[in-house]
Amino acid sequence: MVNKGKIVIIGTSNVGSAILNKITDFQLASEIVLIDINTAKAKGEALDASHATSCIYSTNINVHVGTYKDCHDAGIIIITAGPSIKPGETPDRLILAKTNVKVMHSIMSEITKYTKEAMIIAITNPLDVATYYISTHFDYPREKIVGTGTMLETFRLRRILANHYHVDPKNIHGYILGEHGNSAFTAWSTVNIAGMPLSHLDDCFNFSQRIDCKAIEDEVVQVAYDIINLKGWTNTGIAMVACRLIKAVLYDEHTILPLSAVLEGEYGLRDIALSIPRMLCGEGVVKSFEVKLTDAERDLLLRSAESVKKASACCRDL
Amino acid sequence: MVNKGKIVIIGTSNVGSAILNKITDFQLASEIVLIDINTAKAKGEALDASHATSCIYSTNINVHVGTYKDCHDAGIIIITAGPSIKPGETPDRLILAKTNVKVMHSIMSEITKYTKEAMIIAITNPLDVATYYISTHFDYPREKIVGTGTMLETFRLRRILANHYHVDPKNIHGYILGEHGNSAFTAWSTVNIAGMPLSHLDDCFNFSQRIDCKAIEDEVVQVAYDIINLKGWTNTGIAMVACRLIKAVLYDEHTILPLSAVLEGEYGLRDIALSIPRMLCGEGVVKSFEVKLTDAERDLLLRSAESVKKASACCRDL
Amino acid sequence: MVNKGKIVIIGTSNVGSAILNKITDFQLASEIVLIDINTAKAKGEALDASHATSCIYSTNINVHVGTYKDCHDAGIIIITAGPSIKPGETPDRLILAKTNVKVMHSIMSEITKYTKEAMIIAITNPLDVATYYISTHFDYPREKIVGTGTMLETFRLRRILANHYHVDPKNIHGYILGEHGNSAFTAWSTVNIAGMPLSHLDDCFNFSQRIDCKAIEDEVVQVAYDIINLKGWTNTGIAMVACRLIKAVLYDEHTILPLSAVLEGEYGLRDIALSIPRMLCGEGVVKSFEVKLTDAERDLLLRSAESVKKASACCRDL
Amino acid sequence: MVNKGKIVIIGTSNVGSAILNKITDFQLASEIVLIDINTAKAKGEALDASHATSCIYSTNINVHVGTYKDCHDAGIIIITAGPSIKPGETPDRLILAKTNVKVMHSIMSEITKYTKEAMIIAITNPLDVATYYISTHFDYPREKIVGTGTMLETFRLRRILANHYHVDPKNIHGYILGEHGNSAFTAWSTVNIAGMPLSHLDDCFNFSQRIDCKAIEDEVVQVAYDIINLKGWTNTGIAMVACRLIKAVLYDEHTILPLSAVLEGEYGLRDIALSIPRMLCGEGVVKSFEVKLTDAERDLLLRSAESVKKASACCRDL
Repeated sequence: MVNKGKIVIIGTSNVGSAILNKITDFQLASEIVLIDINTAKAKGEALDASHATSCIYSTNINVHVGTYKDCHDAGIIIITAGPSIKPGETPDRLILAKTNVKVMHSIMSEITKYTKEAMIIAITNPLDVATYYISTHFDYPREKIVGTGTMLETFRLRRILANHYHVDPKNIHGYILGEHGNSAFTAWSTVNIAGMPLSHLDDCFNFSQRIDCKAIEDEVVQVAYDIINLKGWTNTGIAMVACRLIKAVLYDEHTILPLSAVLEGEYGLRDIALSIPRMLCGEGVVKSFEVKLTDAERDLLLRSAESVKKASACCRDL
Repeated sequence: MVNKGKIVIIGTSNVGSAILNKITDFQLASEIVLIDINTAKAKGEALDASHATSCIYSTNINVHVGTYKDCHDAGIIIITAGPSIKPGETPDRLILAKTNVKVMHSIMSEITKYTKEAMIIAITNPLDVATYYISTHFDYPREKIVGTGTMLETFRLRRILANHYHVDPKNIHGYILGEHGNSAFTAWSTVNIAGMPLSHLDDCFNFSQRIDCKAIEDEVVQVAYDIINLKGWTNTGIAMVACRLIKAVLYDEHTILPLSAVLEGEYGLRDIALSIPRMLCGEGVVKSFEVKLTDAERDLLLRSAESVKKASACCRDL
Repeated sequence: MVNKGKIVIIGTSNVGSAILNKITDFQLASEIVLIDINTAKAKGEALDASHATSCIYSTNINVHVGTYKDCHDAGIIIITAGPSIKPGETPDRLILAKTNVKVMHSIMSEITKYTKEAMIIAITNPLDVATYYISTHFDYPREKIVGTGTMLETFRLRRILANHYHVDPKNIHGYILGEHGNSAFTAWSTVNIAGMPLSHLDDCFNFSQRIDCKAIEDEVVQVAYDIINLKGWTNTGIAMVACRLIKAVLYDEHTILPLSAVLEGEYGLRDIALSIPRMLCGEGVVKSFEVKLTDAERDLLLRSAESVKKASACCRDL
Repeated sequence: MVNKGKIVIIGTSNVGSAILNKITDFQLASEIVLIDINTAKAKGEALDASHATSCIYSTNINVHVGTYKDCHDAGIIIITAGPSIKPGETPDRLILAKTNVKVMHSIMSEITKYTKEAMIIAITNPLDVATYYISTHFDYPREKIVGTGTMLETFRLRRILANHYHVDPKNIHGYILGEHGNSAFTAWSTVNIAGMPLSHLDDCFNFSQRIDCKAIEDEVVQVAYDIINLKGWTNTGIAMVACRLIKAVLYDEHTILPLSAVLEGEYGLRDIALSIPRMLCGEGVVKSFEVKLTDAERDLLLRSAESVKKASACCRDL
């Protein structure tokens, strides 16, 4: 029987440990299992987190190192394992494809020995390649696999627009879609602030200078590499994305978010994983939406798909 | 010096006590002062709440009965006092106007003896009349007075649409504007679900039956009276509205919400309080937005203004 | 299969509705089912709560009216149904025994048709009689039934001592044990503040006047009736108690709390339900502790047992 | 005027960034300012955290890089700057004394230019030396300076005992006192689990093997170095300690915690900073407690004091 309160985190480096800590802070699990080929790191993170959970304000969450066998009754499995872009490296997540598809292969081979019921949240980059690979090369219910996709880009877009107009980012609606990476694009036709569409924003806010959409789009993509160069990695934003998804699953929220999964004819695309708005609930991804895009946006989506398809080629070699 | 963590609640009946409990649950204050002409009720609520805050998971919030003198360093003052619609009574908040304007008079006369710095959140009905009266008949910084307005109707709209499409209400954007009461109207042109405008929703969700906007609008207004008849009063929803406003103030969020305040020429209207989208932060209401409406929506706004203006006439008699 | 996130609340009057609202505030369920013979009240509370959960800060919890059939996959069932002491009535919960044992009979007869797996939290008064009855007269796993017991008295003791010494109640340790009611007693030998035993407290705090234990004990018991007379009922404190228990169950915390269950020889007592320290986790009450008491405290425990035993006699008549 | 919601974090390495993230997760500030001589790191952490705060569940906290000038209206300043023990280094925090006293000097010289009103939380090691230095060498209200002290050891003790007896650590009371470091000692006479003193625990839990107190004490001290060797640093536990202190200050809790501050005759000690139980509230450390210790425990306290005094000698050279 699935234990909804049990979450397994595979990979406890910068991203995995940040997710561990946000899950305990938000009290989203009763048991958290850490798996890492670097067992020392996993053990150290488990010990440190366990001391935090003995604070009087914390729930008594059981954080411990485990093995893949722990997946057998897990409610959610989060995959963060595999190398990521380092400071100074070519700023393109796709170059990690070959290595990380192999990592995904070994992880999924283990997980599928023990369960087909857990919700799997993929975070390893290149995200869409990883999501595509684990969704199509293993006998696992496809609706139970989801990649964090362009959630993080969407958070960044909202923060950048929020800073620009000095407004709460919770008022900013709209999505970045496509690849989690360089070919992601802003679906500006979906963007509005508190019901005010892009075309009216500067007037509503009494801004004499028109907003420079291109500059903002570039900043959204670039800021990931900026953070890597500034602090050495990114992990806080993506950890919050993971928790947003966990909440949607745990509370059976039926929330629509820009998530990566294998396309099944939406926008005429198939056999590739990409982010479009999808509904996430306790059962997994239960619906995908072909939100109306402008022709230009549709072209950007196709271009993004092309880019990911090329990178996904390496999946076939395994 | 203002103590940002000190909140005064005036009126501890169904609404005031619900707000008290949500504030302690969400840990939004370090001190909560209750004022009520029915001091027994205030005392009972303070005692009961104080026992809850001795739970190991609670912060040690100081809940106690007080007097208007406590307003002198309060960060936020919430006014819920005055009678409200009872089960079986005529379902129109405006009929309470005369009585409650007098209640507002006596309360504001007291508050203004002690402070002009606290943020005042008005909840007493008829909300727009009360907000108008306290904003215009006393020497108090106008940006520091806000009525909860059509926030509650907007919550209700989102829940009703969420149930209809079986989707997370956090995905539902758009506002109900105008009077907090029978002449409130849905600004359908601002409504979208996850970027999908009203006109595409049924297609996107594969619904063969078109959505009946009129029925939903009616339900939003009617459900308030339904709850009154079913449970005797409404308090849970409005208590959450109050907490949403408190968060916007405490965290200086610059959030845009449909709030009531005195119009200053927006949509050609003046000398009346109504809800339109307004930005709320630590300083109070710092900006109002003339969101683009259709002609029909603009007519409904004017009609709503007319209705409130009539009810506000009694303010002049005091 | 049990759905850990599904909570059924039976009885939606003052206590049940307060619990509903605290559960949603603390996001302790994904689905909450309300059952009440007064279906209007249940419906009204469900509607009102559902509007609160459409706030952007809330999880999308599904609150709805249901039937006993909903118990079949519930993780937790909370019983608050039955009349309680009203203002002006004789201040003794035991007088409700006959009526409420009948209420318990009809509720448990329904629940046991659908489940033997849910954790049952009993709150109806007289608490120990109700707990005893439902634990012994039905074929239900005994470890899965728990009464809130002297948790509330213990919260009150901590708050009263906290106010006396002006210290955080989270620093105050120790228990009230025995009956949830007039014969409850403070096990002063278990009481300490931050490691300072009762005998040193006044010195440590530089209080010249010795603490009056008897006055404090009396206040703990009396304050319940004070609140009833002041506000008409008590609900906030007990709702927090319920949430404390829910957390211990949901997070499998193995927390030791003063809870009511049928004694099995502890302190030489059997065939009666009373509060002593017990360990609560996901599986229910898994351990009870015979904490060392002074002879005087042991006498008070026996006296309390006597009182409850007498009141429990009516259980046999059904 | 002090802005209670503004927190300045000095040092944004492993510890500072973990604190930043816990503060945003727990929504304990409206504005967080990061100061680091490595401005790139501070900038990277601010950007990453700002993306997390654009999640729909987050408050719109303003996280940004700043300068010491930002201290002028800060409510709380947290000092984490300075090198810490690295994997493989001699496991003794005291060897960092000389370097970090200089770091404290330069930081306090800056802070005191702008404020004497913020609560200062010291975390830099050797903690007691740093706390002593900043408390005694600058004209700053002493009650407004506190070191995290043996809070972390106390969390660790509770977790280790909790695991041993398989019980919620929130049930475990008692303190580790003295130096935050190798000479810290467990005040076993203050330890109890849910009111059961050490001498009864094994009986109460039906453990045939007596608890090995010495082994547990050693583990508490050793686990810090274990974590450093396993993951490279410790930060999660101490970040939770910082948040516990922040809550005590923000909510004016009057909580008693084992905190470091300059002794003023307690246990006959002066002119040295060490951890004993102290009361923390909005005004700072307002009371210290000479909890009764056994003779052996008192000896350990004196020995710990001796050790810290020696290390504090370097403070005089500056």
